[in-house]
Formats: sequence, C-alpha cells, structure tokens
Amino acid sequence: MLTSASKIEPMKALDSRFTERSKATPGIPSAISSTDAKAKEDTSSDSEDKMAAINKNLAFAKRKPELLLDGGEVVEKRKKGRPRKDKMAASVPQAAAPPPAAAVLRLPTPSLQKTFSLQVSMDPSVFLEVENDVSVVAGSKLSQLRCSRDGRDWNTLLPSSVLAAAGSSDVLAVACDDRMLSVFSCSGRRLLPAIQLATPVSALHCSAHFVMVLTAGATLSVWDAQRQKALVKNESLQTIFSGAETTVSLSLLTQQGVPIIGLSNGKSFCFSLSLETWTLIADKGDSLVQCADFRSCLPSQDAAASSGPLAVVQGRNLNAGRLASRLSSTPHHLQQSMTLAFLENQLASALTLQSAQEYRYWLLIYARFLVNEGSEHRLRELCKELLGPVHKSAASSWQPATLVGLHKRELLREVLPVIGENLRFQRLFTEYQDQLELLRTK
Amino acid sequence: MLTSASKIEPMKALDSRFTERSKATPGIPSAISSTDAKAKEDTSSDSEDKMAAINKNLAFAKRKPELLLDGGEVVEKRKKGRPRKDKMAASVPQAAAPPPAAAVLRLPTPSLQKTFSLQVSMDPSVFLEVENDVSVVAGSKLSQLRCSRDGRDWNTLLPSSVLAAAGSSDVLAVACDDRMLSVFSCSGRRLLPAIQLATPVSALHCSAHFVMVLTAGATLSVWDAQRQKALVKNESLQTIFSGAETTVSLSLLTQQGVPIIGLSNGKSFCFSLSLETWTLIADKGDSLVQCADFRSCLPSQDAAASSGPLAVVQGRNLNAGRLASRLSSTPHHLQQSMTLAFLENQLASALTLQSAQEYRYWLLIYARFLVNEGSEHRLRELCKELLGPVHKSAASSWQPATLVGLHKRELLREVLPVIGENLRFQRLFTEYQDQLELLRTK
Amino acid sequence: MLTSASKIEPMKALDSRFTERSKATPGIPSAISSTDAKAKEDTSSDSEDKMAAINKNLAFAKRKPELLLDGGEVVEKRKKGRPRKDKMAASVPQAAAPPPAAAVLRLPTPSLQKTFSLQVSMDPSVFLEVENDVSVVAGSKLSQLRCSRDGRDWNTLLPSSVLAAAGSSDVLAVACDDRMLSVFSCSGRRLLPAIQLATPVSALHCSAHFVMVLTAGATLSVWDAQRQKALVKNESLQTIFSGAETTVSLSLLTQQGVPIIGLSNGKSFCFSLSLETWTLIADKGDSLVQCADFRSCLPSQDAAASSGPLAVVQGRNLNAGRLASRLSSTPHHLQQSMTLAFLENQLASALTLQSAQEYRYWLLIYARFLVNEGSEHRLRELCKELLGPVHKSAASSWQPATLVGLHKRELLREVLPVIGENLRFQRLFTEYQDQLELLRTK
Repeated sequence: MLTSASKIEPMKALDSRFTERSKATPGIPSAISSTDAKAKEDTSSDSEDKMAAINKNLAFAKRKPELLLDGGEVVEKRKKGRPRKDKMAASVPQAAAPPPAAAVLRLPTPSLQKTFSLQVSMDPSVFLEVENDVSVVAGSKLSQLRCSRDGRDWNTLLPSSVLAAAGSSDVLAVACDDRMLSVFSCSGRRLLPAIQLATPVSALHCSAHFVMVLTAGATLSVWDAQRQKALVKNESLQTIFSGAETTVSLSLLTQQGVPIIGLSNGKSFCFSLSLETWTLIADKGDSLVQCADFRSCLPSQDAAASSGPLAVVQGRNLNAGRLASRLSSTPHHLQQSMTLAFLENQLASALTLQSAQEYRYWLLIYARFLVNEGSEHRLRELCKELLGPVHKSAASSWQPATLVGLHKRELLREVLPVIGENLRFQRLFTEYQDQLELLRTK
Repeated sequence: MLTSASKIEPMKALDSRFTERSKATPGIPSAISSTDAKAKEDTSSDSEDKMAAINKNLAFAKRKPELLLDGGEVVEKRKKGRPRKDKMAASVPQAAAPPPAAAVLRLPTPSLQKTFSLQVSMDPSVFLEVENDVSVVAGSKLSQLRCSRDGRDWNTLLPSSVLAAAGSSDVLAVACDDRMLSVFSCSGRRLLPAIQLATPVSALHCSAHFVMVLTAGATLSVWDAQRQKALVKNESLQTIFSGAETTVSLSLLTQQGVPIIGLSNGKSFCFSLSLETWTLIADKGDSLVQCADFRSCLPSQDAAASSGPLAVVQGRNLNAGRLASRLSSTPHHLQQSMTLAFLENQLASALTLQSAQEYRYWLLIYARFLVNEGSEHRLRELCKELLGPVHKSAASSWQPATLVGLHKRELLREVLPVIGENLRFQRLFTEYQDQLELLRTK
Repeated sequence: MLTSASKIEPMKALDSRFTERSKATPGIPSAISSTDAKAKEDTSSDSEDKMAAINKNLAFAKRKPELLLDGGEVVEKRKKGRPRKDKMAASVPQAAAPPPAAAVLRLPTPSLQKTFSLQVSMDPSVFLEVENDVSVVAGSKLSQLRCSRDGRDWNTLLPSSVLAAAGSSDVLAVACDDRMLSVFSCSGRRLLPAIQLATPVSALHCSAHFVMVLTAGATLSVWDAQRQKALVKNESLQTIFSGAETTVSLSLLTQQGVPIIGLSNGKSFCFSLSLETWTLIADKGDSLVQCADFRSCLPSQDAAASSGPLAVVQGRNLNAGRLASRLSSTPHHLQQSMTLAFLENQLASALTLQSAQEYRYWLLIYARFLVNEGSEHRLRELCKELLGPVHKSAASSWQPATLVGLHKRELLREVLPVIGENLRFQRLFTEYQDQLELLRTK
C-alpha cells in the first residue's frame, strides 16, 4: 500500500530499546552487560568497514551508547531528553521469569513499547517503524509495521504487539508478543509463514538474507529466509554457560549466517553450521592467546590487519605475544608449541566463522611461523593438503576448495613465496612450485 | 506367506479404537475432542475428493462417529451393538500418566485390544487385521499382523502387542506395546528397521510413503519410508500448546508428508519441513480472517473452490469477509491492510503445506485483490518475483520453481490476464507479457 | 615439531584406562559390565579379521582383559605388575554425579590420569601419549598430546587436562576436562575447531575419519571429521534405556560411522543415520531369534560365515534355530512366520548398519528360505524390487543401489541361482533371468 499521508521521519525517535536489554531492576538479574571501552574500540575506522559485514547487537545496561550499530551502519543517537526511556524505566519490563531454579536458563525479553523505529540499512536506506495497538477491529488489537525503503513506503498489520524488530538490506523480521516471528522482504512481501517460537524473543538480528533469534528460553535459531531453510534449530545456550552468573554480553550474526554469542566470562562462541555444535573462538582468559608469540610473522603493512568477525570478538587484545616478553624463562619449545596451537586454533575458528579474509590472513602468519621455526614436516603437510592429489582419482576425498570458498591451490600460490623466502626450504619450494605449474598446464 | 485358511473379512469388525482416543475416565484428562459439525462439514462432496489426498484422524470423545475416514476413503461403521466398545469403556485404558506436573505434556495412548481391523486404502483395496497374543512360543507372546491387498493375503509376527496400526496404499505401520514402530510395504516387505520410540504411541498416520507418529510424550516424528529418511524428528508439541487445558483435536498427514496438528483452542499448526518449525495455518479465533474482505476476488465458478489441507483445517468458516459487512465503520485503508495481510498469510501457509493447488488458488485471489485496490507497487513486486532474472547470472538466487513445484513463470502467465483486466495496469501487463514472450523464444 | 628427545616407547605402558570404565567403588553405580566369555568369543580368528573393520570398546569391570582391541588391531597387554592400575583404584574416580534422580541418566566419566598412552593403529603404526599438567605457563596448566606415526613424532599443547583419547589410522581425538573435544589428523593438523560438549566425556571412539562421543549426560554424537559434518547430534540414550538398572556394556563405531550401543539387558541398538532414530539390532532375550529355523539355508562353506558389526553384537548365540528343535510342537506356519520375521529383521539391521557384506549374506539365506518354504509371492516381490523398472521413467522412485552401496541388479544375479535350484520356480527364474539379460544388453 502506498501510504503517503505520514512519511516516516528518519531520525525522529531512534529507540534504544532494540539494543538496550534488561534494565537492571530489583529482583531481576541483569543478563547483559558490556563495556564502553569495547564500544569505542569497535568504532575505529578499520573495523567499521569490516563491520559493515557484521550485524551487531551491543547491549548496554545503565549506559547511554554513543554509537548505535545495526546492520553495519553507524547511526548517531541524538540525546534529546528521551522521555521514552524514562517510560521504559518506570514501566514494568517484560523481563525474565521469577528467579529461576539453577538449572533453568532465562534471558531477558524486551519491554513492550507503544512505538519505536530504527534504521536497518544505509545503502539502500531502509527504516522501520512499529506502532503497537494502532487500531482495534472486531475486538482484536492490531499493530502496524511500516517500512520506508529508498523513499517508498509500505506497511502491514500484525495481530499482536511487536516486541522486537530487526532488518538488513534484504529482509525485515519482527517478533511479537504472541511469540510469532514474521519475516518480510524489504519490499514488503511476506517471505516466511509466521513462525511459532517456544518462548518470547530475547534478541533478534538480520544479516543479508539470514534471520537469527535468541529466545528467553536461551535457545538460538537461524533461518535462511531466501531458501526457507533452518540453519540452526533451537540450539540451547546451556552448553556454553559455565555458571549462574554468566550472562550474554554480545550476540552477532555474520553475513554468512553464522551466529556468535559473547559471554560475560570473556568467552565467545560461534555455532558451527556444519558440525552443528558450539565452538569456542575467543577466550579473553586464555593464556595460550597471551603467550603466543608470532610478532615476527605479521604482514608488513599494518593497514591490512585482520578484520572480520573473529577480530571483532577477540578484540584488540590480540597483540601478538603481549605477554610473550614476560615469558623469557619459558623453554623455547614450549613457547613454540603454544604459539602453534594458537595459530591452528585461529585457522579452525576462521573456517567455522566462514570468514575467508581472516582465514587467508592467519594462514600466511601460520606459514611464516612454520618457516621461522624450521618446521619442515608441518610445512610439507600444509603444502600437501593445499595441493591435493596430482592425479584425479575416484577414491580421493580431497576437496579443491576450503569451506570458506577459497581455492586451496590459490592459497598454496600465496603460501609458497613465504616458504621460498627461507633458503632452508628451497627444495620444498621448488618441489611444490613445479607441481603447481604442472597442474596449471593440465 | 499365502494363508488362505482364514481370509480377512472386510467389514467384520471395524474397530473405532484407531480413531477413538481417551475415553473420558475419571482422573484422566480428555485430550481429544471434536464436534459433529465439523465431521459433517468434512463429508461434503467437494472435500471428500480432496480428502482422498489427506490421511485424517478425527477423534471423538463420547460420540459415535458416523463416518470413519482413513487414508482418504469413507468407510461406514455398522453399528452392530458393539461389544468391543463396552469392553473398552470397562477396561482400564492405557491412558496418559497420572496427573502430570504443569510442565509435562502428555497425550493419551490407545488402549490395548485383543483384535481389531481397518481398511487403509480403497484403490487398491487394503485391509489390516491385528490379533494380539495369537500364540505363545518359548515363553514369549507373539502378535500377528495380517494384510489383505487386492485379495492377496500376507501376515507377519511381532514380538509385542500392537497398540495402533495405520496404512496407506503404499505402506503400513504398526506401533507396539514395547514402543517399537514397524513399517511394511503393502506387499509385506519390512521397509524399515524397528524404530524405538521414546514414549508409547498416541496417534499413527500413513500417507503415500510417509509415516507419522505422535507419541504420548507429545513429540512428533515423520519418516519417508521410501528414502528411509527422517523428515520430522521428535518435535515437541510443547511449543504450540498455550495452556494446560489445550488438547489435540486433530492430527493429519498430507500426501507430501506435511504433518498438521489441530488444537482445541481453534488453532491449527503444520510443521514446516524446511524451516523445521511450527507454523500457524489456521486460527478460528483470529479476527483478521473474519475481517478480510475479498469477496470480489473469488474465482467465478464456485465449483473450483479451494480444497486441500489448508481448506480442511480452516473449515468452511472461511467465508470471504463474513464479518466484513459489520465493519463498515472501519477505515478503508485498515480493511485493505488486514485483507492483504490475510491473503499473504494464506500464500505462505499453502507453501508450507506444499499444497500446489491451493497456492495457485490464493495467488489468483491475491492478484485480483491487488488489481482491485490499485496496488501497482505490490503488483510489480509480484510480477518481478515470478518472472525472475531475464539474463541468467551466476549470482542470481532466483529459483524458477516455487517450493510446491509450480513454475513461477507459469504462474505469471496465469496472473497476467487478471492484471490485464484493469485498464489502469495495461502498461504493467504489456511490460511483463513482452518479457515472458522474450523468454519463451529464447 | 620434530621432537626426538624422548621418543614414545610403543609398549611401555599400555593403559587400560581407555577401556576400563567405572571401577566399582562404593556408592557409584557400575555402569559398564561385560563378560570374559564374550571377550574370548570375539577373539576367534574369523571375527578378528572382520573386526579390523570395527573400532571397539570392550569395557571390563574388575577384570584384566587379555586382549585389547582398538582400531581393529589386536594388541597384547603385557602384565607387568601395573602400578598405574593400583593408582587408579585408589584415586577417587571422576565418576558420575551423586545418585541421580530416577529420570536423570548419567554415565560414568574416566578418572583423571597424570599420563597414559595407547596404540590406535597398527598399519600404519600410530601411538598416542598424553601427559597432563606438563607445564605451567602464565598461571595456566598445559597438557601435552604426543603422537608417533611410523616413527615420526609430533606434539601439541592443550589448555586443559585430557580425560580420554582415541584414534584411528586417520584421526585422533582428545576430550579434555574443560569439556572441549579436539580432533587432529594423524599427521598433527587440527581438523576441527574445539567442540564444546555439554557434559564431560564418558566414552570416545574413532573409526576411519569418524569421531564418536558418548557423554556423561548420556548423549551420543558422531562427526565426520573429513567433511566437518555432524552425523549424529546429541542423541539421548534415554530412549533406549528401559530401567534404572540398565547400563551401557558396549559402545562401537563402525567404519561407516554408524554408532552401536550395547546395554546390560542384552539389547543392542544402533543409531540409523538416515532415519535419525535408534533401531534395535540385537536382543539376547528375544525368542524370535532363538526360534527361527534356517539351518537348511546357511551357505555351504562355514568359513564364509557372516562377520561384521551385526555378527559382533549378536554374538555367536545366533545359532540357526538352537531352540528350534525344542519347538517340534509349534505349528509349522507359526515357525515359518517367526523365521521370516527374523530374517527380514536381519536384512533391515544390516542395512541400518551399512554392512554390505552382511546384507548380502542374509539376503541369500532369506532367498533360500523363501525357496524352501515355497513362498512364490514373496520371491516375486523380492525379484521385482531388485530388478526395478525395465523402462526408465521419470516418476519411478526405484533406486538402483541399496543404501549400502550394493547394486540391486547384482544382488538379483546372485539370488537367481538360488531360486533356480528349485524346479518349482523355474518359471520365475527364467522370467527374471531374461529381463536381466535384456537390461544388460540395453
């Protein structure tokens, strides 16, 4: 419907409800926390570009976020004496259930708002506005979702109040009070049938054509709205919670549809879509990370620093060997082993996150480290895996591409020069260079 | 084994145990209810044809069903002073557990019968007969399943009493007292290994080569017996139950293997095989349905009325805008929005149900509605989606067929004449007509 | 890293911790039991060859196993006055939680060891050695995993103590105290990101490139480390446990990645990867098995006796009709039915286990039985299914290959001679022989 009567004003009232969760009210555990420091960190120019690739939900308790990121665009929140926020604090939030038994994990739910709006995409420019209880028809309250896309408006009605809304340049999702989740294209078409959630929504994210829901019952689901498929199905967060005080500090959905959860204990997990399991990708309390020493292996230009979901969750803490200097007493072989284990973990994590750019970044550091340490055996292993079988055989299970869509032989081409830099490995270099040439001419 | 000694007599004793659940006995919640009105409705001639496509389980408490539908054929139950029924009432049924805690959902289980039979298919004509405890061998009781198909008999033995049996023209399934589920082809071959259920069976359905089990623990599973694959795996009904008094009033399995559950609160859900989630497809208490006004958009011949699983669960209540006349005071744009939301829901539901005929039916009503309301923007959206990209590009994610196997461009061909009826959209009509021609000649 | 300083000594101290579980200590239920008789049985020469195909975990309580099988190779354990064992008995094992509530299923966990080693493959020769708390760096304890493969050593560090380790000729897996599971290639490359388990490990197996984990929370998972895919995902064993006293006596992972669990009540289940459900494949208490009489249908040479996972779990108890002679009073048709049901179960089980050799073995016995009993109808059914459609048609759902990779028409070629032996079925024989020829020439 083309309604021109009342156009959505972009900056009218950017509600922080979408990002603020669980105002700490007496008796209700604050399940989300964060730090301003991190917020500042994530706004540096490098990561901003890359965060255009990441849909993020930074949750702040008791703080006014200076920057609100959603769908990867930075939107400034104007502090205009925000009456709505007071109303939020005053009203009884629809928070978690009464103090749960130790075994029952509950995440907070957003409080119900009369109206709110948010910008979900910059290019194209897409704004959402929700107005709850806009009308009563035949005894039922109806709520309205309005969307403005490149100046074109459309709206739709929903039979229940909207608790949370999210969007990307492709899709919009709204989660209602009746625990129904609705997904629309940015042009207004309903993409999926209304999905019944088991418990109320806690967090909602969209990235590309993926939709992620975190429920109050601490389950995670991700759908591919385009292919109408479930990627992650009701995964309980119980597995990754270590204790009653642990809370969710961060939830992300990458452009590849990989969900990431950051906990208050410093650990960040992503859910591997293929292994169907939680994998640890960052741990601020992990000594291996702090002790790993690969300073001599970083790429020359610092501008090409790794950025992507892995970098975002690991933070700038990841200084190569910050503690390394303190470990001068540690036997060399031990330091080697720790660094090696760390680098291999980075590769595995980048793969799970389907972050191609970061996988290549860490692969080159890994190769340089092996060269510096003289690890011919592992270098051979690596080259052999990247090259694959020279003669195609039916029994071979070698996959020419990695799970992130990079071609293994292309990676080998990038790795070989690193190997060639060291005279010690000239023979290895030549051996694989020749085989690559052979395959190219085939 | 060809046993001709005792042929199964088709109409001998058609047991209602298969359809009657949970005789209301003191202390045990009656989990299934229904209405005669609905039964009558579903026996109208239109829906009978279409219900040949639906395997249905109408459960009646305290009533004598006049018609027993299974596998889509109508079978008359002769009231012959049914001693077995008395025996059922008198015996302690193997019903649900003692009054469960609020959180534990339990569905009733069939009571154990000495013998019962049912017709599961009309063309070809297939009858099942179960005789429990037919023999004792080496201290173990054996039960017998006999099947008569087009006059040919076969039988098999099972190590445990059979609680429930179901079948289609392709497969038979029996659920036993030891919680094992066995599936056979109608010719007598065991199709699947014995499947261990977690809790006793509550309801059992077969449709085409699909088998559906609803367990006492309120979980739903569906298998494709042909491909030996699980389509739905232990889905808990907890998600769709709204309160302690809600009960299951209907369970269906469509010819595409899509399971449908109807609840006593008027809501019907189906489980989307791709989204792996429950989706609401009918809600008798939904005002949107009653207020939607598309009377002017229905196809001319009423004989071509929509019929299929969606029509079955929504019932004949779905008069286009029955309440619409009462809403003369409702602003036009509001009525428009409600109707539009309703129609888009119908499309989404038909897709989830994989009901091609109903998808096309509602698509044409939708198109007519958009034309009548002058919604050029949405019409363009629709045409654009149905046409797809004119030039094939690798990056395109456009699928030429919908999820129900219809070709989008064929649907466009059917929609265009509807658009062309209105002079206002001549330009749109011509534009897409030309593009279709272009693609046809390519 | 090439560490030559301390090579792993192959036979130094083969720890039985990997196979011994749950030393019966007061207050802790012994969850694993076994019999020496079975152990002896499994060490006969026939099954040894076939067990090279099976990764097995025979658990012994209070007994010294004479043979330790892992990865299919027989390794002799030298009894050298095993101090470590005493240490195990004395230390408080990290066993199951305090006596669980009736509904909570718990499996025991291995006790923490300072160091242990095991051989996981004979050809190539692969040894693992774990040393926990090998070093403390920056306040964190590190543990070391060392692997010796064909004389080449590599090692890696882990941030947590290793509770269990397992391997095959392709992969190694370690489960740590922090509930993380790590999987490496035998050459030392980390294959998967660290996987977070919900509860501590109870049993760990590797076979080919598959990894199986049984957790203390009684859930089962299996991953394909090569394709980085989950085959079985957190399947609860609750479904197959029949009572509080039931315990796990056996856990296996076949070369096809099919997991098998044997319970103390004599039942063995495998998890069907496609049906995503537990299926009963052996039941020592099942009368059908004991009564089935197919002695006349066995293949002539006993050396070609069936061996494979099905034979292993069913044990040598499976004498064709051991009790059959005692059933001379049983009506013939009843015995026929029982035997038929049994043979069809064997076929279904072999399919689920993806055990091609055993499927063919039982198919021929089945065919011979049908011939001996004169069951023309079922023989025709069988031939028809194996032949498939003569004219390819799009609508046909016939699959040319069975689920175990055998070609149905090849099987038909093997079955036909069996049919042809009986003059009574000459017509059937000729009919299908001709059709096979026709298809061959096409």
